Amino acid sequence: MPSYTAPVRDMQFVIHELLKIDRYVATLPGFAEATPETVAAILAEAARLSEDVLQPLNAIGDREGCRLENGVVFTPPGFKDAYTAVAEGGWPSLIGHPDYGGQGLPYVLGLAVSEMMASANMAFTMYPGLTTGAIEAIEIAGSDEQKALFLPSMISGRWTGTMNLTEPHCGTDLGLLRSKAEPQADGSYRITGTKIFISAGEHDLTENIVHLVLARIPGGPDGVKGISLFIVPKYRVEADGRLGARNALSCGAIEEKMGIHGNATCLMNYDGAIGYLLGEAHQGLPTMFIMMNAARLAVAVQGLSQAEVAYQNALQYCKERLQGRSLRGAQYPDQAADPLIVHPDIRRMLMTVKVFQEGARALAYWAGVTVDIIRKHPDAEARQKAEDLLGLLTPVMKAYFTDMGFVSTNLCLQCLGGHGYIVASGMEQFVRDARIAQIYEGANGIQALDLVGRKLPAHKGRAIQLVFGIVRGFCEKYTDNAALSPFVKPLADALERLVTATQWLMRHAVSNPDNGGAVSMDYLYLVALVALGYQWAQVARVCKNKLSNPDDDSFDRAFYQNKVVCAQFFMEKILPETAAHLAKIQAGADSLMILPAEAF
Amino acid sequence: MPSYTAPVRDMQFVIHELLKIDRYVATLPGFAEATPETVAAILAEAARLSEDVLQPLNAIGDREGCRLENGVVFTPPGFKDAYTAVAEGGWPSLIGHPDYGGQGLPYVLGLAVSEMMASANMAFTMYPGLTTGAIEAIEIAGSDEQKALFLPSMISGRWTGTMNLTEPHCGTDLGLLRSKAEPQADGSYRITGTKIFISAGEHDLTENIVHLVLARIPGGPDGVKGISLFIVPKYRVEADGRLGARNALSCGAIEEKMGIHGNATCLMNYDGAIGYLLGEAHQGLPTMFIMMNAARLAVAVQGLSQAEVAYQNALQYCKERLQGRSLRGAQYPDQAADPLIVHPDIRRMLMTVKVFQEGARALAYWAGVTVDIIRKHPDAEARQKAEDLLGLLTPVMKAYFTDMGFVSTNLCLQCLGGHGYIVASGMEQFVRDARIAQIYEGANGIQALDLVGRKLPAHKGRAIQLVFGIVRGFCEKYTDNAALSPFVKPLADALERLVTATQWLMRHAVSNPDNGGAVSMDYLYLVALVALGYQWAQVARVCKNKLSNPDDDSFDRAFYQNKVVCAQFFMEKILPETAAHLAKIQAGADSLMILPAEAF
Repeated sequence: MPSYTAPVRDMQFVIHELLKIDRYVATLPGFAEATPETVAAILAEAARLSEDVLQPLNAIGDREGCRLENGVVFTPPGFKDAYTAVAEGGWPSLIGHPDYGGQGLPYVLGLAVSEMMASANMAFTMYPGLTTGAIEAIEIAGSDEQKALFLPSMISGRWTGTMNLTEPHCGTDLGLLRSKAEPQADGSYRITGTKIFISAGEHDLTENIVHLVLARIPGGPDGVKGISLFIVPKYRVEADGRLGARNALSCGAIEEKMGIHGNATCLMNYDGAIGYLLGEAHQGLPTMFIMMNAARLAVAVQGLSQAEVAYQNALQYCKERLQGRSLRGAQYPDQAADPLIVHPDIRRMLMTVKVFQEGARALAYWAGVTVDIIRKHPDAEARQKAEDLLGLLTPVMKAYFTDMGFVSTNLCLQCLGGHGYIVASGMEQFVRDARIAQIYEGANGIQALDLVGRKLPAHKGRAIQLVFGIVRGFCEKYTDNAALSPFVKPLADALERLVTATQWLMRHAVSNPDNGGAVSMDYLYLVALVALGYQWAQVARVCKNKLSNPDDDSFDRAFYQNKVVCAQFFMEKILPETAAHLAKIQAGADSLMILPAEAF
Repeated sequence: MPSYTAPVRDMQFVIHELLKIDRYVATLPGFAEATPETVAAILAEAARLSEDVLQPLNAIGDREGCRLENGVVFTPPGFKDAYTAVAEGGWPSLIGHPDYGGQGLPYVLGLAVSEMMASANMAFTMYPGLTTGAIEAIEIAGSDEQKALFLPSMISGRWTGTMNLTEPHCGTDLGLLRSKAEPQADGSYRITGTKIFISAGEHDLTENIVHLVLARIPGGPDGVKGISLFIVPKYRVEADGRLGARNALSCGAIEEKMGIHGNATCLMNYDGAIGYLLGEAHQGLPTMFIMMNAARLAVAVQGLSQAEVAYQNALQYCKERLQGRSLRGAQYPDQAADPLIVHPDIRRMLMTVKVFQEGARALAYWAGVTVDIIRKHPDAEARQKAEDLLGLLTPVMKAYFTDMGFVSTNLCLQCLGGHGYIVASGMEQFVRDARIAQIYEGANGIQALDLVGRKLPAHKGRAIQLVFGIVRGFCEKYTDNAALSPFVKPLADALERLVTATQWLMRHAVSNPDNGGAVSMDYLYLVALVALGYQWAQVARVCKNKLSNPDDDSFDRAFYQNKVVCAQFFMEKILPETAAHLAKIQAGADSLMILPAEAF
C-alpha cells in the first residue's frame, strides 16, 4: 500500500528562503499573520490531515468509486467523514476573504495545503478544490447580495461549488453552447440544458451545491459573445440564508472514467432550474475565465502533487528492493544484491521526477504570491507586472506541470517494474489520476494556444519581455560569479533560445497563423524550461550563499548541498531539451499542414 | 466504441517496396512461397480475423477480465471461441518449422499478422504470442524427442506455452532465483518453487500448457551460472503424444493489473512438478535469452500495434468532431465549426503518432527479415551481419517502440479531450494495455543496459560500426541528390551525433562504468532515432523514385506523396531530439551519482 509524507521541509524552504514572503508584510494584507510559526503550524496540521485522514481513503475511493441511485450520488466510504473533518478544521476558509468568514491568509499557503491534500487524495480534494474557483468568481462578479448569500457558506465549506461549461457537442469551443436561460419576471432566469463532465456535480458531502452554469439568454449575440453565467444552487436559498426548495436540476449519470474514481463526474440536467445572473449579461465567458485561471493554477499543482506522492513511493521501493549489483561492483556485499537505487538509470528516473517537482513547487508557489500581489498590492505597477507574469505563466504551468506530472508518475511506476503494474502497489492509480489533469480546465494544447495566441502578443509582448528582463538581469548580475557559472551559463543559453524562438514567432505567425499553432506546444515547453531553469539557478544561488554564510552551525548542511546537486542535474539533463524545441519551432508548420485530412 | 482496420496497404508497401522480400527467394527457404498473391491473401485473411473476431472482444476482455475458481482460470467471454478460430485458421503454424507441421513462411509475415492481432486485442494475442517464444526455445535447445513430443501440438495451436522466470524477490536479477529442480532416477526433475507474473500461466483455451521454467539443480554454481531451463507441462505427455496425468503445478492467484485484463497473469506454484531439462544443465539463461530476444521483438510490435489502433480511433474523432475554427479562418463555413483536424496542434499529435508507427513498422519488418537471414541464410557472413544488427537493434526497438507506443496512445487519448478519459471511448484501455509493454520482457531500462553494456562493446563495436557504415553509405551516395537532400542532410547530422556519443561512451564508460548506465537510455533513443531516420530517408527515396518513374499511371500517387510529407515531418519535428540526447550524454553520470541514497 502506498504512503505519503508531506514535504514540509521543502515547502518551508520555498516559502521562507526562496520567496522570502516576509518581504510582503508591509504591502500585502494577510502576510503579517503568516509568521514562520503560523506557517509551520498550518503546514504541520495540513500534513497530519493529508497523511492520516485523506491518504488512507485514496485507494478506497479508486476501488469503490461513486454510485448514483435515484438521482442521489454516494461518494466512496469515508469521504463524507473526511469532508466534515476538512470543513470543521477550517481548511476551506484558509485564504477566504475575511468579510465572508475567511482567514485571509496568503494564497501561497492555500496552494501548499492543496498540494498536500491532492498528493494524499486527488479525487477527494477536487470537491473542496472546485469550490475555490466558484468562490472567486462570485467574489469578483457577484452583487453584494449574492456575495452575502453564497460566500459565507462556501468559504466555511458548508456548501461546495462547481463549474458547468461543457455540453455533449461543445467542450473547448464554447461558442457552440446551447443551454438556455429564460428571463423571469422576478429578475431570475430559468435554466435549461445538459452539461457533461461536471466534477463534483452531485454528491452527499454537503447540504447544498452551488453550480455556476454557462447559458444563453435568448436574443443575445451568437457565439461566445452571447454567453452568460448563472448561479444555480441545488437547493434554493432564502433571503435569510436558509435552504429552500429543491431546484429543477439533477444528475442524470456519472461517468465511468480512467481515474479519479472517487470524484463524481456528472451529467447534469437543468430542467428550467432557477438561476441568478452572475455579473453582466453576455459577459459570462470573461467571468468564467477568472475561475478558470485560478483553477488552472490549482490543476498545475495537481500535476506536481501526483509526481510527489509517486516519487515517495518509488523511492522507498528503490531503497528496499534488492536487485542486481552496482556497475562499480557490489556496494552492499553482505546482502544478496544491491538496492535498486545504486543503478544510474534508476537514479535518472528518480532525479528527473525530483527536480521536476521541487522546481515546479518553487515556480507554483511564486505564482501563489503573485496572485496576492494582483489582488492586494497597493502599487498599480506592481499589480500590473504580476498580472502580466501570471497571465503568461499560468498556461505554461498548467500544461507543463500536468504533462510532467503524468511523465513523472509513469517514471515512478517504471521504477517498480512489474510490481508497478499491479493495482495493489498504488502506482498505477497515480498514473490514471494524473492523466486527467492534462485534459480538464482546458486541454494542454489549448493552454499552448492561449500562450502563443493571446498572452504572448498582448500589449506588444510586454509579459515575455518582462520574463526576458528578469532572467537576463539575473544572468548578467552573476555572469562573473565562478561558483554560479555552472547554473548561469546554461540558463543564459536557454534564454537565448527562447528569445530566438520568440523572434521567429513574431516574424512567422502573423503571415501564417498556422505557424503559431504548429509550434505552440514547443514554445510552451521552452518557456517552462527557462522558467524552471531560472528557479533552479535561484535555488543554487540561495543554497550556495547559505553554505558559505551559515547563520549558525546547526543548520542542515546536507539539505542545501543536495539542492545544489539537483540544480546541476536540471541544467545538465533537462535544460538541453530547449535545443530540440527551438529546432522544431524553426521548422514551422509546413510538414504538419500539407497533408489533406483524408491523407492522415 | 473503438474500431480497427488493418493497415494492409502500408504493410504491403513495407514488405514489397521497401524491403523487397522477393530478393530473398533464392537464398531463404519459405520466401519463394511468399508471392505477392500469397502475402495479399494472408494479410487479408488476418485482417478479417483481427477486425471481425478479435477486436470486438477487446473491450469485453478489459471489462470482464479473467476469473480464478478452484485453480481453474476462466478467460473472458468469447476468448475460447476466438482462440479456436485462430488455431483452426492455422495462424499459430504460419512461420512454424515444416518438420513439425509449420508452414515455414517468412518471419516478417508472422510479425505483420501479430501486429494486426495485437492492435485488435493485445491481451488475447498474448496467449498465442508467448507460445511462439517457447516453440523457438524448444526448436533450438530441445532434444529430437522433446521436439517431436511438444512442437507439433504447440505449432498447431493445440497447446500454448509460457515463460517462467520471475519470482517474488527476483525479477531482472535472475541470479537470486530460488526455484529448485531435484534430479530423479528416470532423468526427469522435480520442480519446486513459486513464480509470479506468468502471462497466460493458466487458462481454459487449450487442453495443455507447456511451461518453460527456470530453476536451480542443487549443487550447481551460485548466481546466473547455476540456472537451468525445464519443460514442465500442465499435463504430462506420454511417449505417444497423448495427455497423461496432471502435473503438480497450479495457479495460486491471478493479478489485478492496470491493463491487459483479458490475459491471465498468474502466480504459479510448482510443488514437485515433473520437468524435463531443456538444453544443458546450468545453461538455462542463454536458452531463455533465445526466447527473450524473439519475445522482445514481438513486444516492440505491441508498442506499434497500440499506437496504430489508437491513431485510427483518434483520427476518426478528429475528422468528425466539430470544434473551433481554423486559425486561417473557417474551412467549413457551412458547418457550426471546423473539424478538429484543421488545428495545427491536433495535427502535431496525429503526425507524431503516424510517423512513429509507419517508421516503426518499416524497422520492425526489416528486423523480421533479419530473423530469417540469421536462421536460414546459406552465407555465414550474411548471417553474422544480420545477427550483429538484430542483436543491437532488438533492445532499441523493444524500449523505443514501447515507450513511443505509450506516448502515442496518450497523444491519441488527448485528441479526444475529456471524452478520451471516459471508458466507453476505448482510448484509455489502449493506454493501460500499452503501459505493460514498457515493463515486461525486460524493463526498458534493462534494454538500454543491454545495448550499452553488452551489444555495443561486443566484438569491439562491430555492430554499431555496421550501422554507421550503412547509414553513412546511404548519405554519401545521395549527398548530391537535390530531391533527397531534405532527408539526407538531417540524417547525416543525426548520425554524426550518434558517432560523437559513441566515442564519448568509449572514452568514459570504461574509466567509470556509471557513465554507461547513466547515459544508456539517451544513447538508446539516439540509436532509435537514427535507425528510424534511416528508414524514413529510404521511404522518401523509394517514394520519390516511384513518383518520378511510375511503372504505370494507375498507381496511387497520393500514397507516395503522403509518405514523403511524413518523412519531412520526421526529419523536421522528431529527429532534432537527437541534439538534446547528445547533450545529456555528454553531461555524464556526475549529477546522477553524487547524492547519497538517503538524500533522494
